[in-house]
Amino acid sequence: MPSTLTPDELRQAIRSGAYTENTSGMAVGFVQCNVVILPAGNASDFLRFCQANPKPCPIIAVGDAGATALPGLGNIDIRTDVPRYCVFRQGKMTEEVTDITALWRNDLVSFALGCSFSFEEALVASGLEVRNVSQGLNVPMYQTNIDCTNAGPFSSKMVVSMRPFTASDAIRAIQICTRFPAVHGAPIHLGNPSLIGIGDLERPDFGDAVQIHDTEIPLFWACGVTPQVALASARLPFAITHSPGCMLITDVRNSQLAVL
Amino acid sequence: MPSTLTPDELRQAIRSGAYTENTSGMAVGFVQCNVVILPAGNASDFLRFCQANPKPCPIIAVGDAGATALPGLGNIDIRTDVPRYCVFRQGKMTEEVTDITALWRNDLVSFALGCSFSFEEALVASGLEVRNVSQGLNVPMYQTNIDCTNAGPFSSKMVVSMRPFTASDAIRAIQICTRFPAVHGAPIHLGNPSLIGIGDLERPDFGDAVQIHDTEIPLFWACGVTPQVALASARLPFAITHSPGCMLITDVRNSQLAVL
Repeated sequence: MPSTLTPDELRQAIRSGAYTENTSGMAVGFVQCNVVILPAGNASDFLRFCQANPKPCPIIAVGDAGATALPGLGNIDIRTDVPRYCVFRQGKMTEEVTDITALWRNDLVSFALGCSFSFEEALVASGLEVRNVSQGLNVPMYQTNIDCTNAGPFSSKMVVSMRPFTASDAIRAIQICTRFPAVHGAPIHLGNPSLIGIGDLERPDFGDAVQIHDTEIPLFWACGVTPQVALASARLPFAITHSPGCMLITDVRNSQLAVL
Repeated sequence: MPSTLTPDELRQAIRSGAYTENTSGMAVGFVQCNVVILPAGNASDFLRFCQANPKPCPIIAVGDAGATALPGLGNIDIRTDVPRYCVFRQGKMTEEVTDITALWRNDLVSFALGCSFSFEEALVASGLEVRNVSQGLNVPMYQTNIDCTNAGPFSSKMVVSMRPFTASDAIRAIQICTRFPAVHGAPIHLGNPSLIGIGDLERPDFGDAVQIHDTEIPLFWACGVTPQVALASARLPFAITHSPGCMLITDVRNSQLAVL
Protein backbone atom coordinates (compact mmCIF):
# COMPACT_ATOMS: atom_id res chain seq x y z
CA MET A 1 0.00 0.00 0.00
CA PRO A 2 1.31 3.52 -0.73
CA SER A 3 2.90 5.06 2.35
CA THR A 4 1.09 8.33 1.64
CA LEU A 5 -2.33 6.91 2.58
CA THR A 6 -3.94 8.23 5.74
CA PRO A 7 -4.99 5.82 8.50
CA ASP A 8 -8.61 6.23 7.39
CA GLU A 9 -7.75 5.50 3.76
CA LEU A 10 -5.78 2.42 4.81
CA ARG A 11 -8.69 1.17 6.93
CA GLN A 12 -11.03 1.67 3.94
CA ALA A 13 -8.72 -0.48 1.80
CA ILE A 14 -8.64 -3.10 4.53
CA ARG A 15 -12.40 -2.88 5.11
CA SER A 16 -13.10 -3.48 1.42
CA GLY A 17 -10.85 -6.55 1.37
CA ALA A 18 -8.34 -4.88 -0.96
CA TYR A 19 -5.57 -5.26 1.64
CA THR A 20 -5.27 -8.29 3.91
CA GLU A 21 -1.59 -8.44 4.94
CA ASN A 22 1.01 -7.31 7.48
CA THR A 23 0.75 -3.63 8.51
CA SER A 24 4.39 -3.15 9.53
CA GLY A 25 5.74 0.12 8.13
CA MET A 26 2.29 1.43 7.16
CA ALA A 27 0.68 4.67 8.43
CA VAL A 28 4.00 5.97 9.72
CA GLY A 29 3.51 8.13 12.80
CA PHE A 30 0.22 6.51 13.81
CA VAL A 31 -0.54 4.00 16.55
CA GLN A 32 -1.22 0.40 15.54
CA CYS A 33 -2.90 -1.91 18.04
CA ASN A 34 -3.10 -5.51 19.09
CA VAL A 35 -6.76 -6.60 19.10
CA VAL A 36 -8.59 -9.01 21.41
CA ILE A 37 -12.36 -9.62 21.11
CA LEU A 38 -14.16 -11.59 23.83
CA PRO A 39 -17.69 -12.35 25.04
CA ALA A 40 -18.79 -9.91 27.75
CA GLY A 41 -18.78 -12.78 30.27
CA ASN A 42 -14.99 -12.97 29.98
CA ALA A 43 -14.26 -9.32 29.33
CA SER A 44 -14.07 -8.08 32.90
CA ASP A 45 -11.54 -10.76 33.87
CA PHE A 46 -9.48 -9.92 30.80
CA LEU A 47 -9.66 -6.21 31.65
CA ARG A 48 -8.43 -7.00 35.18
CA PHE A 49 -5.60 -9.10 33.70
CA CYS A 50 -4.52 -6.19 31.51
CA GLN A 51 -4.76 -3.65 34.32
CA ALA A 52 -2.72 -5.90 36.63
CA ASN A 53 -0.05 -6.42 33.95
CA PRO A 54 0.18 -3.07 32.21
CA LYS A 55 3.65 -3.49 30.74
CA PRO A 56 2.79 -6.50 28.51
CA CYS A 57 -0.91 -5.52 28.19
CA PRO A 58 -1.19 -1.72 27.83
CA ILE A 59 -4.84 -0.86 27.15
CA ILE A 60 -5.38 1.82 24.50
CA ALA A 61 -9.18 1.43 24.23
CA VAL A 62 -12.06 -0.89 25.23
CA GLY A 63 -15.41 -0.97 23.41
CA ASP A 64 -18.90 -1.37 24.85
CA ALA A 65 -20.45 -4.86 24.64
CA GLY A 66 -21.69 -5.36 21.09
CA ALA A 67 -20.17 -2.09 19.86
CA THR A 68 -18.17 -2.29 16.64
CA ALA A 69 -16.47 1.07 17.27
CA LEU A 70 -13.52 1.77 19.57
CA PRO A 71 -13.72 5.14 21.30
CA GLY A 72 -11.10 7.74 20.37
CA LEU A 73 -9.23 5.66 17.77
CA GLY A 74 -10.94 6.94 14.60
CA ASN A 75 -13.80 5.82 12.37
CA ILE A 76 -13.44 2.11 13.08
CA ASP A 77 -15.57 -0.94 12.43
CA ILE A 78 -13.75 -3.65 14.34
CA ARG A 79 -15.53 -6.37 12.27
CA THR A 80 -13.75 -5.36 9.06
CA ASP A 81 -10.85 -3.01 9.80
CA VAL A 82 -8.21 -5.54 10.82
CA PRO A 83 -6.53 -7.13 7.75
CA ARG A 84 -6.64 -10.64 9.15
CA TYR A 85 -8.17 -12.21 12.28
CA CYS A 86 -7.55 -15.44 14.21
CA VAL A 87 -10.68 -17.14 15.57
CA PHE A 88 -10.26 -19.32 18.68
CA ARG A 89 -12.72 -21.95 19.89
CA GLN A 90 -12.07 -23.79 23.16
CA GLY A 91 -8.64 -22.13 23.17
CA LYS A 92 -7.62 -23.51 19.77
CA MET A 93 -7.26 -21.40 16.64
CA THR A 94 -9.80 -22.78 14.18
CA GLU A 95 -9.93 -20.18 11.41
CA GLU A 96 -7.98 -17.23 9.99
CA VAL A 97 -10.35 -14.79 8.27
CA THR A 98 -10.27 -11.26 6.83
CA ASP A 99 -13.74 -10.21 8.07
CA ILE A 100 -15.63 -11.23 11.23
CA THR A 101 -19.02 -9.72 10.33
CA ALA A 102 -20.56 -13.20 10.07
CA LEU A 103 -19.17 -14.10 13.52
CA TRP A 104 -20.25 -10.89 15.27
CA ARG A 105 -22.42 -11.14 18.40
CA ASN A 106 -24.07 -8.49 20.53
CA ASP A 107 -22.09 -9.59 23.59
CA LEU A 108 -18.61 -9.17 22.11
CA VAL A 109 -16.20 -6.68 23.71
CA SER A 110 -13.22 -5.35 21.73
CA PHE A 111 -9.86 -4.45 23.28
CA ALA A 112 -7.12 -2.44 21.55
CA LEU A 113 -3.69 -2.87 23.18
CA GLY A 114 -0.46 -0.98 22.50
CA CYS A 115 2.12 -2.42 20.11
CA SER A 116 5.90 -2.16 19.85
CA PHE A 117 5.69 -0.57 16.37
CA SER A 118 5.11 2.76 18.17
CA PHE A 119 8.24 2.73 20.31
CA GLU A 120 10.36 1.28 17.49
CA GLU A 121 9.40 4.32 15.44
CA ALA A 122 10.48 6.60 18.30
CA LEU A 123 13.83 4.77 18.59
CA VAL A 124 14.51 5.00 14.85
CA ALA A 125 13.49 8.68 14.83
CA SER A 126 16.16 9.25 17.51
CA GLY A 127 18.83 7.74 15.28
CA LEU A 128 19.05 4.35 16.99
CA GLU A 129 19.37 1.20 14.91
CA VAL A 130 16.59 -1.26 15.70
CA ARG A 131 18.11 -4.55 14.62
CA ASN A 132 14.94 -6.40 13.58
CA VAL A 133 13.97 -3.36 11.46
CA SER A 134 17.39 -3.02 9.80
CA GLN A 135 17.58 -6.77 9.20
CA GLY A 136 13.99 -6.86 7.88
CA LEU A 137 12.99 -9.57 10.35
CA ASN A 138 10.25 -10.09 12.91
CA VAL A 139 11.45 -9.10 16.37
CA PRO A 140 12.65 -12.12 18.41
CA MET A 141 10.31 -12.96 21.30
CA TYR A 142 10.91 -15.25 24.28
CA GLN A 143 8.89 -16.82 27.05
CA THR A 144 10.34 -15.87 30.44
CA ASN A 145 10.02 -17.24 33.97
CA ILE A 146 8.33 -13.98 35.09
CA ASP A 147 4.79 -14.62 36.37
CA CYS A 148 2.07 -12.23 35.33
CA THR A 149 -0.65 -11.50 37.91
CA ASN A 150 -3.59 -13.87 37.29
CA ALA A 151 -7.18 -12.69 36.78
CA GLY A 152 -9.99 -15.24 36.52
CA PRO A 153 -9.03 -17.80 33.85
CA PHE A 154 -6.23 -15.61 32.49
CA SER A 155 -2.64 -16.41 33.43
CA SER A 156 0.69 -16.36 31.65
CA LYS A 157 4.41 -16.09 32.01
CA MET A 158 5.53 -12.77 30.54
CA VAL A 159 6.64 -12.88 26.91
CA VAL A 160 9.35 -10.37 26.00
CA SER A 161 10.76 -8.98 22.77
CA MET A 162 14.51 -8.38 22.48
CA ARG A 163 16.50 -5.66 20.73
CA PRO A 164 20.32 -5.39 21.11
CA PHE A 165 22.07 -2.04 21.60
CA THR A 166 25.45 -0.68 22.59
CA ALA A 167 25.51 0.56 26.20
CA SER A 168 25.08 4.23 25.35
CA ASP A 169 22.25 3.47 22.91
CA ALA A 170 20.68 1.18 25.54
CA ILE A 171 20.62 4.08 28.02
CA ARG A 172 19.07 6.34 25.35
CA ALA A 173 16.51 3.64 24.43
CA ILE A 174 15.44 3.39 28.08
CA GLN A 175 14.98 7.17 28.19
CA ILE A 176 12.97 7.26 24.96
CA CYS A 177 10.70 4.30 25.77
CA THR A 178 10.02 5.64 29.28
CA ARG A 179 8.00 8.37 27.55
CA PHE A 180 5.65 5.75 26.06
CA PRO A 181 4.07 3.65 28.83
CA ALA A 182 1.02 2.99 26.62
CA VAL A 183 3.16 0.96 24.22
CA HIS A 184 5.09 -1.23 26.70
CA GLY A 185 7.26 1.58 28.12
CA ALA A 186 10.82 1.03 29.32
CA PRO A 187 12.48 -2.39 29.03
CA ILE A 188 11.85 -4.79 31.90
CA HIS A 189 15.30 -6.40 31.75
CA LEU A 190 18.72 -6.01 30.19
CA GLY A 191 21.86 -8.11 30.06
CA ASN A 192 21.99 -11.75 31.12
CA PRO A 193 18.97 -13.54 29.55
CA SER A 194 19.17 -16.51 31.93
CA LEU A 195 18.16 -14.26 34.86
CA ILE A 196 14.64 -14.14 33.38
CA GLY A 197 14.60 -17.77 32.26
CA ILE A 198 15.71 -17.38 28.64
CA GLY A 199 18.07 -20.17 27.58
CA ASP A 200 19.32 -19.25 24.12
CA LEU A 201 18.82 -15.91 22.35
CA GLU A 202 19.38 -17.63 19.01
CA ARG A 203 16.23 -19.72 19.54
CA PRO A 204 13.33 -17.32 20.09
CA ASP A 205 9.94 -18.80 20.98
CA PHE A 206 8.28 -16.45 18.47
CA GLY A 207 9.66 -14.32 15.61
CA ASP A 208 13.18 -14.43 14.22
CA ALA A 209 16.65 -14.44 15.79
CA VAL A 210 18.62 -11.25 15.10
CA GLN A 211 22.35 -10.48 15.10
CA ILE A 212 23.91 -9.36 18.38
CA HIS A 213 27.36 -7.80 18.12
CA ASP A 214 30.09 -8.36 20.74
CA THR A 215 29.79 -4.84 22.10
CA GLU A 216 26.00 -5.00 22.46
CA ILE A 217 23.66 -5.74 25.35
CA PRO A 218 20.24 -7.36 24.85
CA LEU A 219 17.33 -5.23 26.05
CA PHE A 220 14.03 -6.97 26.81
CA TRP A 221 10.60 -5.33 26.55
CA ALA A 222 7.30 -6.72 27.82
CA CYS A 223 5.51 -8.00 24.71
CA GLY A 224 1.93 -7.97 23.43
CA VAL A 225 2.13 -11.70 22.75
CA THR A 226 1.69 -12.13 26.53
CA PRO A 227 -2.09 -11.50 26.45
CA GLN A 228 -2.35 -13.90 23.51
CA VAL A 229 -0.73 -16.62 25.61
CA ALA A 230 -3.06 -15.78 28.52
CA LEU A 231 -6.00 -15.98 26.14
CA ALA A 232 -4.95 -19.38 24.86
CA SER A 233 -4.38 -20.67 28.39
CA ALA A 234 -7.90 -19.59 29.40
CA ARG A 235 -9.39 -21.99 26.79
CA LEU A 236 -12.42 -19.75 26.26
CA PRO A 237 -15.25 -21.18 24.18
CA PHE A 238 -14.91 -18.25 21.78
CA ALA A 239 -12.42 -15.44 21.15
CA ILE A 240 -10.99 -13.46 18.25
CA THR A 241 -7.64 -11.69 17.88
CA HIS A 242 -5.78 -9.93 15.10
CA SER A 243 -3.42 -12.19 13.16
CA PRO A 244 0.24 -11.59 14.15
CA GLY A 245 1.61 -8.48 12.39
CA CYS A 246 -1.80 -7.59 10.92
CA MET A 247 -2.69 -4.77 13.31
CA LEU A 248 -5.53 -2.31 13.74
CA ILE A 249 -4.40 1.05 12.31
CA THR A 250 -5.72 4.02 14.30
CA ASP A 251 -5.97 7.80 13.89
CA VAL A 252 -3.98 8.35 17.11
CA ARG A 253 -0.48 9.71 16.55
CA ASN A 254 2.38 7.95 18.33
CA SER A 255 3.45 11.35 19.66
CA GLN A 256 0.06 11.69 21.40
CA LEU A 257 0.99 8.69 23.58
CA ALA A 258 4.13 10.39 24.94
CA VAL A 259 3.68 11.23 28.61
CA LEU A 260 6.39 13.89 28.44
CA MET B 1 26.96 17.58 63.10
CA PRO B 2 23.26 17.14 63.96
CA SER B 3 21.22 16.22 60.89
CA THR B 4 18.55 18.74 61.89
CA LEU B 5 20.75 21.74 61.08
CA THR B 6 19.76 23.85 58.08
CA PRO B 7 22.24 24.47 55.26
CA ASP B 8 22.79 27.99 56.61
CA GLU B 9 23.44 26.71 60.14
CA LEU B 10 25.86 24.12 58.78
CA ARG B 11 27.73 26.76 56.77
CA GLN B 12 27.98 28.91 59.91
CA ALA B 13 29.56 25.99 61.78
CA ILE B 14 31.95 25.46 58.88
CA ARG B 15 32.68 29.18 58.56
CA SER B 16 33.58 29.44 62.23
CA GLY B 17 35.97 26.49 61.97
CA ALA B 18 33.81 24.31 64.25
CA TYR B 19 33.37 21.74 61.47
CA THR B 20 36.13 20.84 59.00
CA GLU B 21 35.29 17.32 57.76
CA ASN B 22 33.42 15.28 55.13
CA THR B 23 29.90 16.55 54.37
CA SER B 24 28.46 13.22 53.16
CA GLY B 25 25.01 12.65 54.68
CA MET B 26 24.68 16.24 55.93
CA ALA B 27 21.91 18.71 54.94
CA VAL B 28 19.75 15.91 53.57
CA GLY B 29 17.65 17.14 50.64
CA PHE B 30 20.01 19.99 49.72
CA VAL B 31 22.52 20.28 46.89
CA GLN B 32 26.20 19.96 47.71
CA CYS B 33 28.76 21.17 45.18
CA ASN B 34 32.24 20.54 43.91
CA VAL B 35 34.22 23.80 44.05
CA VAL B 36 36.92 25.10 41.71
CA ILE B 37 38.48 28.56 42.19
CA LEU B 38 40.73 30.01 39.47
CA PRO B 39 42.31 33.29 38.42
CA ALA B 40 40.13 35.17 35.91
CA GLY B 41 42.76 34.62 33.22
CA ASN B 42 42.01 30.88 33.29
CA ALA B 43 38.32 31.05 34.11
CA SER B 44 36.92 31.43 30.60
CA ASP B 45 38.82 28.39 29.33
CA PHE B 46 37.62 26.38 32.33
CA LEU B 47 34.05 27.54 31.72
CA ARG B 48 34.33 26.40 28.09
CA PHE B 49 35.71 23.05 29.28
CA CYS B 50 32.70 22.58 31.58
CA GLN B 51 30.20 23.64 28.95
CA ALA B 52 31.75 21.28 26.39
CA ASN B 53 31.70 18.38 28.88
CA PRO B 54 28.46 18.89 30.82
CA LYS B 55 28.06 15.32 32.06
CA PRO B 56 31.29 15.25 34.15
CA CYS B 57 31.29 19.05 34.73
CA PRO B 58 27.71 20.25 35.33
CA ILE B 59 27.85 23.94 36.26
CA ILE B 60 25.51 24.96 39.09
CA ALA B 61 26.86 28.50 39.56
CA VAL B 62 29.79 30.76 38.60
CA GLY B 63 30.79 33.84 40.60
CA ASP B 64 32.02 37.21 39.34
CA ALA B 65 35.79 37.83 39.42
CA GLY B 66 36.74 38.64 43.00
CA ALA B 67 33.25 37.91 44.34
CA THR B 68 33.08 35.71 47.41
CA ALA B 69 29.37 34.96 46.90
CA LEU B 70 27.85 32.45 44.47
CA PRO B 71 24.56 33.61 42.96
CA GLY B 72 21.44 31.66 43.90
CA LEU B 73 23.07 29.17 46.26
CA GLY B 74 22.39 30.92 49.60
CA ASN B 75 24.31 33.22 51.91
CA ILE B 76 27.76 31.99 50.97
CA ASP B 77 31.28 33.24 51.55
CA ILE B 78 33.37 30.94 49.37
CA ARG B 79 36.52 31.82 51.37
CA THR B 80 35.25 30.13 54.53
CA ASP B 81 32.19 27.98 53.76
CA VAL B 82 33.91 24.86 52.45
CA PRO B 83 35.15 22.62 55.30
CA ARG B 84 38.51 21.95 53.72
CA TYR B 85 40.29 23.25 50.60
CA CYS B 86 43.18 21.99 48.44
CA VAL B 87 45.56 24.67 47.17
CA PHE B 88 47.44 23.94 43.92
CA ARG B 89 50.55 25.74 42.69
CA GLN B 90 52.03 24.86 39.28
CA GLY B 91 49.55 21.96 39.16
CA LYS B 92 50.76 20.40 42.41
CA MET B 93 48.77 20.35 45.65
CA THR B 94 50.83 22.29 48.15
CA GLU B 95 48.47 22.87 51.09
CA GLU B 96 45.21 21.64 52.56
CA VAL B 97 43.52 24.42 54.56
CA THR B 98 40.16 25.13 56.19
CA ASP B 99 39.96 28.81 55.22
CA ILE B 100 41.29 30.64 52.14
CA THR B 101 40.74 34.21 53.32
CA ALA B 102 44.49 34.82 53.46
CA LEU B 103 44.86 33.49 49.89
CA TRP B 104 41.97 35.46 48.39
CA ARG B 105 42.61 37.71 45.39
CA ASN B 106 40.41 40.11 43.51
CA ASP B 107 40.82 38.15 40.27
CA LEU B 108 39.60 34.78 41.58
CA VAL B 109 36.50 33.20 40.00
CA SER B 110 34.55 30.51 41.87
CA PHE B 111 32.75 27.61 40.19
CA ALA B 112 30.20 25.33 41.88
CA LEU B 113 29.66 22.05 40.03
CA GLY B 114 27.04 19.35 40.64
CA CYS B 115 27.88 16.35 42.80
CA SER B 116 26.69 12.75 42.87
CA PHE B 117 25.35 13.11 46.43
CA SER B 118 22.21 14.63 44.88
CA PHE B 119 21.34 11.73 42.59
CA GLU B 120 22.35 9.14 45.17
CA GLU B 121 19.75 10.69 47.48
CA ALA B 122 17.13 10.40 44.71
CA LEU B 123 18.05 6.74 44.13
CA VAL B 124 17.84 5.89 47.84
CA ALA B 125 14.53 7.80 48.14
CA SER B 126 13.18 5.54 45.37
CA GLY B 127 14.06 2.44 47.36
CA LEU B 128 17.20 1.50 45.44
CA GLU B 129 20.25 0.26 47.31
CA VAL B 130 23.31 2.38 46.51
CA ARG B 131 26.16 0.02 47.31
CA ASN B 132 28.78 2.57 48.40
CA VAL B 133 26.20 4.12 50.73
CA SER B 134 25.07 0.79 52.23
CA GLN B 135 28.68 -0.38 52.61
CA GLY B 136 29.72 2.99 54.10
CA LEU B 137 32.49 3.45 51.52
CA ASN B 138 33.56 6.11 49.06
CA VAL B 139 32.15 5.42 45.61
CA PRO B 140 34.68 3.65 43.34
CA MET B 141 35.94 5.89 40.52
CA TYR B 142 37.87 4.92 37.40
CA GLN B 143 39.77 6.67 34.64
CA THR B 144 38.34 5.72 31.24
CA ASN B 145 39.57 5.93 27.65
CA ILE B 146 36.81 8.46 26.83
CA ASP B 147 38.27 11.79 25.72
CA CYS B 148 36.70 14.96 27.04
CA THR B 149 36.58 17.94 24.68
CA ASN B 150 39.63 20.14 25.31
CA ALA B 151 39.45 23.87 26.08
CA GLY B 152 42.62 25.95 26.35
CA PRO B 153 44.98 24.20 28.79
CA PHE B 154 42.21 21.95 30.13
CA SER B 155 42.03 18.33 28.94
CA SER B 156 41.21 15.01 30.54
CA LYS B 157 39.98 11.52 29.99
CA MET B 158 36.55 11.18 31.59
CA VAL B 159 36.55 9.83 35.14
CA VAL B 160 33.46 7.77 36.05
CA SER B 161 31.92 6.55 39.28
CA MET B 162 30.41 3.05 39.42
CA ARG B 163 27.35 1.70 41.22
CA PRO B 164 26.10 -1.89 40.67
CA PHE B 165 22.41 -2.72 40.30
CA THR B 166 20.19 -5.58 39.22
CA ALA B 167 18.82 -5.10 35.70
CA SER B 168 15.42 -3.81 36.80
CA ASP B 169 16.99 -1.43 39.33
CA ALA B 170 19.46 -0.32 36.64
CA ILE B 171 16.57 0.63 34.35
CA ARG B 172 14.92 2.52 37.22
CA ALA B 173 18.20 4.25 38.10
CA ILE B 174 18.54 5.46 34.50
CA GLN B 175 15.01 6.87 34.65
CA ILE B 176 15.58 8.61 37.98
CA CYS B 177 18.97 10.12 37.09
CA THR B 178 17.70 11.34 33.72
CA ARG B 179 15.64 13.86 35.72
CA PHE B 180 18.83 15.38 37.17
CA PRO B 181 21.15 16.56 34.36
CA ALA B 182 22.66 19.20 36.69
CA VAL B 183 24.18 16.46 38.85
CA HIS B 184 25.70 14.21 36.14
CA GLY B 185 22.36 12.91 34.78
CA ALA B 186 21.93 9.41 33.35
CA PRO B 187 24.82 6.95 33.36
CA ILE B 188 27.17 7.14 30.37
CA HIS B 189 27.85 3.39 30.24
CA LEU B 190 26.69 0.08 31.66
CA GLY B 191 27.93 -3.49 31.50
CA ASN B 192 31.37 -4.44 30.20
CA PRO B 193 33.93 -2.08 31.81
CA SER B 194 36.64 -2.87 29.24
CA LEU B 195 34.58 -1.15 26.53
CA ILE B 196 35.44 2.20 28.18
CA GLY B 197 39.00 1.26 29.08
CA ILE B 198 38.51 0.05 32.65
CA GLY B 199 40.66 -2.98 33.42
CA ASP B 200 39.60 -4.19 36.86
CA LEU B 201 36.58 -3.01 38.86
CA GLU B 202 38.27 -4.18 42.05
CA ARG B 203 41.05 -1.64 41.57
CA PRO B 204 39.45 1.81 41.31
CA ASP B 205 41.68 4.77 40.51
CA PHE B 206 39.96 6.79 43.25
CA GLY B 207 37.67 5.82 46.15
CA ASP B 208 36.97 2.29 47.36
CA ALA B 209 36.02 -0.96 45.61
CA VAL B 210 32.46 -2.11 46.40
CA GLN B 211 30.79 -5.52 46.26
CA ILE B 212 29.16 -6.52 42.97
CA HIS B 213 26.80 -9.50 43.15
CA ASP B 214 26.53 -12.10 40.37
CA THR B 215 23.14 -10.83 39.23
CA GLU B 216 24.23 -7.20 39.06
CA ILE B 217 25.40 -4.94 36.25
CA PRO B 218 27.86 -2.08 36.82
CA LEU B 219 26.49 1.36 35.89
CA PHE B 220 28.97 4.16 35.20
CA TRP B 221 28.26 7.85 35.74
CA ALA B 222 30.38 10.80 34.58
CA CYS B 223 32.20 11.99 37.69
CA GLY B 224 33.16 15.35 39.17
CA VAL B 225 36.74 14.19 39.61
CA THR B 226 37.09 14.76 35.84
CA PRO B 227 37.45 18.57 36.16
CA GLN B 228 39.98 18.02 38.97
CA VAL B 229 42.09 15.92 36.61
CA ALA B 230 41.74 18.57 33.90
CA LEU B 231 42.79 21.21 36.41
CA ALA B 232 45.88 19.23 37.43
CA SER B 233 46.82 18.60 33.80
CA ALA B 234 46.63 22.34 33.06
CA ARG B 235 49.45 22.99 35.61
CA LEU B 236 48.08 26.43 36.44
CA PRO B 237 50.25 28.67 38.59
CA PHE B 238 47.43 28.90 41.17
CA ALA B 239 44.12 27.16 41.81
CA ILE B 240 41.97 26.08 44.73
CA THR B 241 39.41 23.27 44.99
CA HIS B 242 37.34 21.72 47.77
CA SER B 243 39.02 18.75 49.45
CA PRO B 244 37.48 15.42 48.29
CA GLY B 245 34.20 14.77 50.14
CA CYS B 246 34.27 18.18 51.87
CA MET B 247 31.69 19.91 49.70
CA LEU B 248 30.01 23.31 49.58
CA ILE B 249 26.53 22.96 51.14
CA THR B 250 23.90 25.12 49.41
CA ASP B 251 20.34 26.29 50.07
CA VAL B 252 19.16 24.72 46.77
CA ARG B 253 16.98 21.65 47.22
CA ASN B 254 17.89 18.57 45.18
CA SER B 255 14.27 18.48 44.00
CA GLN B 256 14.73 21.95 42.46
CA LEU B 257 17.28 20.45 40.08
CA ALA B 258 14.78 17.93 38.65
CA VAL B 259 13.92 18.83 35.06
CA LEU B 260 10.67 16.86 35.25
